Amino acid sequence: MTPRVREILSWYGADNPGVLTNLARMMNHGKLAGTGKLVILPVDQGFEHGPARSFAINPDGYDPSYHFQLAIESGCNAYAAPLGALEACAREFAGEIPLLLKINNSDTLYGNKAPISALTSHIDDALRLGCAGIGFTIYPGSAERKHMYEEIAMASAEAKKAGLAVVIWSYARGEQISKEGETGIDVIAYAAHIATQLGAHIVKVKPPTSFIEQDAARKVYQAQGIKVDTLADRTRHVVQSCFNGKRIVIFSGGEAKGTEEILKEVKDLATGGAFGSIMGRNAFQRPKKEAIQLLHGVMEAFAGKAL
Amino acid sequence: MTPRVREILSWYGADNPGVLTNLARMMNHGKLAGTGKLVILPVDQGFEHGPARSFAINPDGYDPSYHFQLAIESGCNAYAAPLGALEACAREFAGEIPLLLKINNSDTLYGNKAPISALTSHIDDALRLGCAGIGFTIYPGSAERKHMYEEIAMASAEAKKAGLAVVIWSYARGEQISKEGETGIDVIAYAAHIATQLGAHIVKVKPPTSFIEQDAARKVYQAQGIKVDTLADRTRHVVQSCFNGKRIVIFSGGEAKGTEEILKEVKDLATGGAFGSIMGRNAFQRPKKEAIQLLHGVMEAFAGKAL
Amino acid sequence: MTPRVREILSWYGADNPGVLTNLARMMNHGKLAGTGKLVILPVDQGFEHGPARSFAINPDGYDPSYHFQLAIESGCNAYAAPLGALEACAREFAGEIPLLLKINNSDTLYGNKAPISALTSHIDDALRLGCAGIGFTIYPGSAERKHMYEEIAMASAEAKKAGLAVVIWSYARGEQISKEGETGIDVIAYAAHIATQLGAHIVKVKPPTSFIEQDAARKVYQAQGIKVDTLADRTRHVVQSCFNGKRIVIFSGGEAKGTEEILKEVKDLATGGAFGSIMGRNAFQRPKKEAIQLLHGVMEAFAGKAL
Amino acid sequence: MTPRVREILSWYGADNPGVLTNLARMMNHGKLAGTGKLVILPVDQGFEHGPARSFAINPDGYDPSYHFQLAIESGCNAYAAPLGALEACAREFAGEIPLLLKINNSDTLYGNKAPISALTSHIDDALRLGCAGIGFTIYPGSAERKHMYEEIAMASAEAKKAGLAVVIWSYARGEQISKEGETGIDVIAYAAHIATQLGAHIVKVKPPTSFIEQDAARKVYQAQGIKVDTLADRTRHVVQSCFNGKRIVIFSGGEAKGTEEILKEVKDLATGGAFGSIMGRNAFQRPKKEAIQLLHGVMEAFAGKAL
Amino acid sequence: MTPRVREILSWYGADNPGVLTNLARMMNHGKLAGTGKLVILPVDQGFEHGPARSFAINPDGYDPSYHFQLAIESGCNAYAAPLGALEACAREFAGEIPLLLKINNSDTLYGNKAPISALTSHIDDALRLGCAGIGFTIYPGSAERKHMYEEIAMASAEAKKAGLAVVIWSYARGEQISKEGETGIDVIAYAAHIATQLGAHIVKVKPPTSFIEQDAARKVYQAQGIKVDTLADRTRHVVQSCFNGKRIVIFSGGEAKGTEEILKEVKDLATGGAFGSIMGRNAFQRPKKEAIQLLHGVMEAFAGKAL
Repeated sequence: MTPRVREILSWYGADNPGVLTNLARMMNHGKLAGTGKLVILPVDQGFEHGPARSFAINPDGYDPSYHFQLAIESGCNAYAAPLGALEACAREFAGEIPLLLKINNSDTLYGNKAPISALTSHIDDALRLGCAGIGFTIYPGSAERKHMYEEIAMASAEAKKAGLAVVIWSYARGEQISKEGETGIDVIAYAAHIATQLGAHIVKVKPPTSFIEQDAARKVYQAQGIKVDTLADRTRHVVQSCFNGKRIVIFSGGEAKGTEEILKEVKDLATGGAFGSIMGRNAFQRPKKEAIQLLHGVMEAFAGKAL
Repeated sequence: MTPRVREILSWYGADNPGVLTNLARMMNHGKLAGTGKLVILPVDQGFEHGPARSFAINPDGYDPSYHFQLAIESGCNAYAAPLGALEACAREFAGEIPLLLKINNSDTLYGNKAPISALTSHIDDALRLGCAGIGFTIYPGSAERKHMYEEIAMASAEAKKAGLAVVIWSYARGEQISKEGETGIDVIAYAAHIATQLGAHIVKVKPPTSFIEQDAARKVYQAQGIKVDTLADRTRHVVQSCFNGKRIVIFSGGEAKGTEEILKEVKDLATGGAFGSIMGRNAFQRPKKEAIQLLHGVMEAFAGKAL
Repeated sequence: MTPRVREILSWYGADNPGVLTNLARMMNHGKLAGTGKLVILPVDQGFEHGPARSFAINPDGYDPSYHFQLAIESGCNAYAAPLGALEACAREFAGEIPLLLKINNSDTLYGNKAPISALTSHIDDALRLGCAGIGFTIYPGSAERKHMYEEIAMASAEAKKAGLAVVIWSYARGEQISKEGETGIDVIAYAAHIATQLGAHIVKVKPPTSFIEQDAARKVYQAQGIKVDTLADRTRHVVQSCFNGKRIVIFSGGEAKGTEEILKEVKDLATGGAFGSIMGRNAFQRPKKEAIQLLHGVMEAFAGKAL
Repeated sequence: MTPRVREILSWYGADNPGVLTNLARMMNHGKLAGTGKLVILPVDQGFEHGPARSFAINPDGYDPSYHFQLAIESGCNAYAAPLGALEACAREFAGEIPLLLKINNSDTLYGNKAPISALTSHIDDALRLGCAGIGFTIYPGSAERKHMYEEIAMASAEAKKAGLAVVIWSYARGEQISKEGETGIDVIAYAAHIATQLGAHIVKVKPPTSFIEQDAARKVYQAQGIKVDTLADRTRHVVQSCFNGKRIVIFSGGEAKGTEEILKEVKDLATGGAFGSIMGRNAFQRPKKEAIQLLHGVMEAFAGKAL
Repeated sequence: MTPRVREILSWYGADNPGVLTNLARMMNHGKLAGTGKLVILPVDQGFEHGPARSFAINPDGYDPSYHFQLAIESGCNAYAAPLGALEACAREFAGEIPLLLKINNSDTLYGNKAPISALTSHIDDALRLGCAGIGFTIYPGSAERKHMYEEIAMASAEAKKAGLAVVIWSYARGEQISKEGETGIDVIAYAAHIATQLGAHIVKVKPPTSFIEQDAARKVYQAQGIKVDTLADRTRHVVQSCFNGKRIVIFSGGEAKGTEEILKEVKDLATGGAFGSIMGRNAFQRPKKEAIQLLHGVMEAFAGKAL
C-alpha cells in the first residue's frame, strides 16, 4: 500500500473496510497501481448509441470479452459496463480486473427533454458478479433530478453497506441548460459538487470549457477572479469543488478524436490535478494495439513518467 | 448433452445451474433437441388481438389445450402463453413440454402512443406452473421505456435467482420511430442489443428489413460497409449485435402469410445464423396437420436436414 | 358432489384445494346447488350510484342485512358486496351463504374518461370475513388498464394462495370505445377473454348486442361467419371465447327492467350456454317477495326445469 | 355498560374486542356517557386555516393543552387533533379523555381543484400516543378519490387489526360538484354512504341542505317522495343512508356562528336521529366558560334532557 | 442540566429518552450550553447554489472540514450539512459537535414552480454518522406539499423511534404565494405552525416581514389587533404560533449582509423570544476570525450577556 493510496483512503472516513478495500483494489490494479491515479475503460455505448455505431468500426467489440481483454491487457484500473456485458464474461475473467456495474442506462431510440436513465440492475447483481463498485448517471438540470437523486441515494446506501464503491457519472442536462452550458465550467463544477454531496466515492464529469452558464455564477467567477482560462485551471477548480480535492474526480474522454488531441487534453487534466480518465470510445473503437498504446500514453500522462 | 448445447450453455457463465438446466430443457426438447436451435410456439394473440381475430379461423384454438397439443405433437422446444392459458392446462400436460410464462401483455382495446404492457403475472406463478422461464415484452422507443426496463430488471433478477430462463421480446416502437423504422435493420439490431444488455438469456426480435431509421446509424452502416442487402446478411448483423453471437436470438414469424413465403424467410434466417423461430399465428391459425407440417419445415430449415 | 360440478372443478387444474373448495361451496349452495349454474346477488349500487338511487324504491335495502336475507331466502349461490356491507352482517349470517368481497369500487361523484375503481379492501379482509372469494372490476379500453390489470394480478395471486375464488367483472370502457361498442359482441368477447387470461375463475360480463366495434374484428366475424344474430348465438361465442367454455362465465342483469324482459333474456343466455346470472338492481329493487319470485324464475331458466 | 351502548356495539360484528373497547371508551366518556350520543372536540384548524385565523380570537388556543382542558372540562366524548398537538400533551393528559389522531391534513397555502390531504401520521403514532382511534378525511368528488379511498383502506385495515376506531370525515368536493352541491342532501347522503362502505366505524358529514346536485338523484328523490324539507328530515335520510342507522353518524358544526343558531341546528340534528356533533371553531373560539356552556347545551340537546 | 433546558425538554412528553438526550446534547453544547438558546451552523449552500457561489469568497470552505472547525471553534450548538460533507469529516471530528444530517436537498440547475427537494439520505445514514438529528425542508404552498409532508411524516416517525431529533426547515413557496408573501408574517407563522403539527422538535423559519399575504388572514390580524410592526412583535407571534412557545423555533440569517445589520436583526429576534439562529452564508463566507466574532455576537444577543 503506497502512502498516496493510503492518503486517499483516509478521506473516506465514513466508509467501512469493505468499501476501502474495493477503492484500494481499483487504485492498486494495472499500470497505475499505487499512484492514486485511475484510468477506467467504460463500455456502455452499445446501450447508449446502438451496436453498429459503437462497434462496427472495430468489430471485435461486438464481443464483450474483447473489452475485458482490452482493459486487462492495457493495464486499466477497472472496467465498467451494463449488466448483460458483465454477465457474459464475469466468470471467464473472474479476478483479473476490478469491475464496475453500470446500474442505470439509457438509449437513443427515444429522446426526452427531462432526461433520466433506467435502473437496469441492482446491488445484488454487482455482488454476484464480483464487482468492486457500481456506476450511476445523474443528470442535474433535468426535471427528473429528484427521481435520480433518490435512486442513487437508495442504491448508494445499499452499496456502501455491502462494501461496494459508488461512482457517479454527473452530466448536467435539461430544459433550462443550454447545449454549451452542459460543459460550462460553472455547471461542471456544480454537477461534480452535487455528486460529492450525494456521497459518491468517485465522481466522473466531462472536461469543462471556459463558458459560464448561470448569471449568478458569472458574477462570482468574475468578482473572485476564479481562473478558468486553461483546461488545467478549470480542472483545478473542479477538483477543488469536490471537497477541496478530497474526493476522486475523473474525466471522460468525450467524442471520438485524434490521439494527439486526446493526449494534449489528458496532460492538461493531469496538470490540473485530475485523478484520472474514464475513456470509452476513444479506446475501444481503435484497433487493439493502437488502443493499448493510447491508454498507455494516457496513463503515463497521469503518472507523470514512463511506465 | 451435445457439444453444441454444452457450448451454448458455456456463454451463460453468470447463471446458476438452475437457469442452465432450464435453458438445456428447452434446447433438449422436441425435434430440434440437441441442435442448439429452437422453435417455440407462442399464443398470446387472444390477449393481444381478441379471441375471434385469433381463433375463429381454426376454432380448436379457443381451447388452450389445443395449443399445448400442437406444441407437443409438432415437437416444438417450448410453448409460451399468458397466465390464464397456462393455468388452464399446466396440470394436464405437466412435464410434456417446457413452458414460458408471458408475464406481461397488452390488448388492442386502447392504443397508446407510449406503448407498455401490463405485468399480468409473476415469478411465483411461473414456478407453481412448472415453467422453464418467463417472457417479457419491451418497447424500446416508447416514452415508457424506463418503466419497462425496470420492470424486467426486477423480474429478471428474481427469475434468475429461481433458476428460470429469461426471454425478452424486444420490439422498438414509439412516437419518435416511424412505422417502417420499427423493423429497420438499425433499430432491430439496437433493440436486440438492449435486450442482451438487460440480461436476457434469449432475445426475440422481428426479421429486419434493409430500411435504416436513424441518421446517425445510417452514416456508420455506410462508412463501415455493413451488409444489409439480404435477410441472411441482416440476420448475421443482428446475431453479431447480441454479444457477437453469444446470446440466443430467435425471430418471430410476423403477420400471417403463405407457407412458401414463411419457409423462404426461415431459410434466410437460418443462413444468417438465427437460433430459431417463435411462430404463433402462422402455426396455430392453420389446421393442425398443416401447422405441424409447416413447423416441421421450419425445424428442418434450422436443422439443415430432414428430421 | 355432482358429476357436473366435479367436471367444472377439473378445469381449474392449477388451483389448490382451497380454491376448489370455495368454487364448490358456491356451486353447491342454494337452489341451483349441484347444477353447475350460478345466480349471484351483488349489491354495490349504493357505492356506485348513491344510496337513494339504489334503495329508496325498496327502503328495506338501506339495511345491508336485507340483502343477506334476500340472497339466502331466494337460494342464491352467493352474495357479493363491498367491505362495509359485509362487515356489517358477516357475523350475523356467518356460514349461511358464500360471500364475495368486492375489493374495488367506484362512485359517480366524479366521472373520468380513463375509468378505474379504487381498491377499497384486501385479501385479508376477505379472509377475516369468511368470504369464498373476491370480486374485481376491470375496464379494458381505459387508459388506466395497465394499472388495473396489475392490481388484479397482485390481488389474484394472493387470493389463490389463500384459497379464495377470483371473480372478474370485465367491462370494456374508455376513450376509444363508443357507447354502443361497450356491449358490442366483439368487445364483450374480448373483455371476457382478457379476464380469463388474467386468471379469473369466474368471468362476469354484460349480455352482448350484435353491434361490432372494431374494424379488424368485423372482417373476421364476417369472413368466418361467426353467428351473432341472437343473444343465444352471442352468448355461445362469449362462452367459447373463455377457453372454449372451460371457465365459468356469468352475465349481469343490467339496467332495471320488466320481469318478462328479464326472463326472456335469461333464457337466451341459458340457451347459449351461460353459467348463470349476477343480478343486482333487478332483484333488490323489487319488493322481497317479487324479487324472490324473479330470482326463482331466473334459476329455473338456468336449471332448465322447475326447482 | 348501558343497553344502548351495547346495542350500538352489536352493529360492529366484524370488529375485534379491541375496536369495540375503544368505541365503548368514547361512548362511555364525558357527560353523554352511556347515551350512545357523542360530542367530540376537533382542533385541526391551525393546520387547515393557519394559527392566527384559528386562535387569535381566543389566544389560549395557541397552546394545545388548552384544547385538551376544554374537551376534558366540558365533558366531551373525545378530542381529535393532528400529530403535533397530540404529541405535545398526550403524556400530560394521559387517560383523561379518549383521543383521535387525525392522520391526514391539508392547509390553505395552496388550493387544488383535485383536493386531497397529506398523510401526516400513522397507526403506530396513534398507538404510542394512547389514542382510541384515527380520523381521516376523504373528498368524494375529487379527481384524487381513488388515491384517498386506497389510503384509508390501508390505514383502516391496520387500525382495525390494532383495535383502533376509524372515523371518516366525508366531504364531497371537486371539479364536477358545485359549491352548493357540496352540502346538497343527495351529495351528503352519498358521501356518508361511501364512508360506511369504506368500513368507517363513525362517519362525519356536514349538515345537509335541501339542495339536490345530481339530476339522476333528483328524479329519485321526487319519484320516491324522500322528505328533505327540514333538517331533521334530511338528517334522518343521511342516517338511513348509513346502513339504516346501524353506523354512528355525527355532524360538524361548520362556520362560526351564534349560540342560538347552533343550538337550533343541533336540536334538528338530534330530532333526525344524529348520533352527535363534532364541534370545533364554534367551541374553541369562544372564551372557555362560554364554550363549555355551549357544549353543554349541545350535549343536552342530544341527551334530550338536562345533564 | 439547567432548569431551563429541563423545562424545554418537558415540552416533548411524547418523545423517548433517546430524542430528549439528543435535544439536550444540542442545548448543552457550545457557548450557549444550558441557556436553552441555539446557534447552529448549516452548510448546504454548495448543493443549493453551487460551489463557487458558496465558497469562492472564502475558499477554505471548499473543504468541509473547515465548517466543522468553524462550528466547533465558534462554539455553535450544532452543525448541519448534507450527506457527502458529513461523510467526509464525521470520523475526524467524532464527538466534537452535535451533527444534523440534512436529508433532503435541492439545487438551482433546474427551477420548478412546484418546488420540492430530493431525499438524498436516510435515518440509517444519520445513525451511522453519529448525528443528533435530521433536517428536512418543506415548502408549504407548493403543489408538491402532500408529497413533502408524507416524506417527513415517514422520516420523522423513523427518526423518533431511533432517538433522533427532527428539525424542519419550513419555507412557504409556490405558485399561489407572492414573492413578498413568502416572508409575510401570516405566511411565516402559518409555515411554522404546520411544522409543529407535523411533529418537528425544532422549527426553522425566515425572519418575517410585516407584509400580510392572505386576505382571510389580514382580516383577523386587523380585527384582533395582532402586533406585527416590529421584528420583535412578529417573532413573538411566530413563537406563539408554535404551541404557544412550547416548541423550539429558530430563525435563518437569510441573504449575506453586514455585521451591524445581522446583529440588529438577531437582537430583535431575541427580544421576541426566538430560541436562536441558524446562520450559514453570513458565517462561513466571512474569514474565520471574523465569522467567529460574528457568531459570538449572535450568541451573546441570545444569551443576553457577554459569554
